[in-house]
Amino acid sequence: VTRGSSATHPNLPDAVLVDGTAWREGLAGTPSALDRGLHFGDGLFETIACRGGRPRFAGLHLQRLTLGCERLGIALPPPTELRAEIELLAADREASLVKVIVTRGPATGRGYGARGDERPTRISLRYGWPPEDPRLQDEGVAVQLSEFRLGENAELAGLKHLSRLDLVLARRGLEAAGVDELLLFSSSGRLVSGSMTNVFLVEGGRLRTPRIDLCGVAGVMRRVVLRAAERAGLAVEEAALGREDLERAQEVFLTNARVGIWPVRRVHTRTLSPGPLTRRVQQLIAPSLEEATDG
Amino acid sequence: VTRGSSATHPNLPDAVLVDGTAWREGLAGTPSALDRGLHFGDGLFETIACRGGRPRFAGLHLQRLTLGCERLGIALPPPTELRAEIELLAADREASLVKVIVTRGPATGRGYGARGDERPTRISLRYGWPPEDPRLQDEGVAVQLSEFRLGENAELAGLKHLSRLDLVLARRGLEAAGVDELLLFSSSGRLVSGSMTNVFLVEGGRLRTPRIDLCGVAGVMRRVVLRAAERAGLAVEEAALGREDLERAQEVFLTNARVGIWPVRRVHTRTLSPGPLTRRVQQLIAPSLEEATDG
Repeated sequence: VTRGSSATHPNLPDAVLVDGTAWREGLAGTPSALDRGLHFGDGLFETIACRGGRPRFAGLHLQRLTLGCERLGIALPPPTELRAEIELLAADREASLVKVIVTRGPATGRGYGARGDERPTRISLRYGWPPEDPRLQDEGVAVQLSEFRLGENAELAGLKHLSRLDLVLARRGLEAAGVDELLLFSSSGRLVSGSMTNVFLVEGGRLRTPRIDLCGVAGVMRRVVLRAAERAGLAVEEAALGREDLERAQEVFLTNARVGIWPVRRVHTRTLSPGPLTRRVQQLIAPSLEEATDG
Repeated sequence: VTRGSSATHPNLPDAVLVDGTAWREGLAGTPSALDRGLHFGDGLFETIACRGGRPRFAGLHLQRLTLGCERLGIALPPPTELRAEIELLAADREASLVKVIVTRGPATGRGYGARGDERPTRISLRYGWPPEDPRLQDEGVAVQLSEFRLGENAELAGLKHLSRLDLVLARRGLEAAGVDELLLFSSSGRLVSGSMTNVFLVEGGRLRTPRIDLCGVAGVMRRVVLRAAERAGLAVEEAALGREDLERAQEVFLTNARVGIWPVRRVHTRTLSPGPLTRRVQQLIAPSLEEATDG
């Protein structure tokens, strides 16, 4: 195995394992045509940033995956096996993204309901690290408010599950809007997140982020930021936030396991500057981004 | 090809075609590990009841699939090809269910957003006709109100899409409740549907069914009933309905492409009798259920 810096194709994985077997299109290690992940979006995933040949925040990713499997009643593959597979894929590259999908497995019956005797499917994919513009972390990103409304569902909230057609559709507006990210609201008007990021507001010296009780993904970097801020003695709050909270915010930033923190420099037509609390949080988490800590 | 009455295993398909190639587990016609149906629930499906070796309401199913592909921006496989494949699978069995999945296809990039250059995947599966209790259509079914709340999303409403984790979870309550079907409400309290049926209420000689603008699937049998009722001069209404409408209803019935119409004989603790309008509608659609009409 060679240790290169990029994948064969920047957008497609250069290694795929299906239940531990190397996948070759139509030949080996192929998913079942009966898989409930394919039929119903019945499963979970993680996208893990790997630097220096090591997965970053592997502990937090596996913890979320474990919790998700418990909530969905999916038999989790042994975490040590999962971790070994992630580490194996990460080790070959200086920088990569390893995506792990765990589905409930091939259907053992017809229809939506699970029967309980399914055996989960595990798919691990390694992607090259996408090109990134360092200015986004320094100068910030432009965001637009999406007209798309995410559905509210307490039993799905927080999970990084496979039923993601809502985000697929929400993303359609991104290119048209000519911005770096979209901010999404739920059907009842709550601020939820970006399309691939969580969102934090700064107001009166306090960090605020949407509570994830009805909608949204409990992002790993969101958790890292919350933890780092609490340890540093900053005031943090998870709350039901609306458009008026966004408008009142002095600073806004976005989080994502790959990019870390993106300060927001423009929301719709309103211009912001990356402020002191955003910079403080960037500094707080910087060491953990560089060291490929376990989380 | 033999014309038998049942599949090899009652719960699993006895024939699967992936892009027209017969699927053999791990060997041939296997789905791609990159398929966006698997990664994001990015696709649609139809379950078509086939009787006498012919698909029933094939026209309506293909029409919904076509509309769904248009709304999602998925390149629809040629409808004549799809229809030929469904008819081929149906022809071998006296009674079967043919499920057709169309996904956006293998990902051509990373992340939620589609790039527009994907080529769709088509998976067709033939299942045996499940055993059914004829009393359910005569005497009616018992239903329970689910505590589960479906998310509201105008852009997904009506579509029979693959992001179905909500219904997978909602179905968990069915066995525990010891009933035949669950009635589901949306996050804002609207009556939506059953977990695998649409719902109709009868009030003051009028048929009422939830409007599908924020939530729910636009069922083929729902459409058949609406059309037959209108042709027969019955008063019908699609409206935003709530729990109080359900409680006021003199009759309640459920629709599904396979079962036709299930009168409801009990809602939670309230006992109902299959009433005159339910019986009238059952008579109206009976011919189309027997003849395997094209819809």
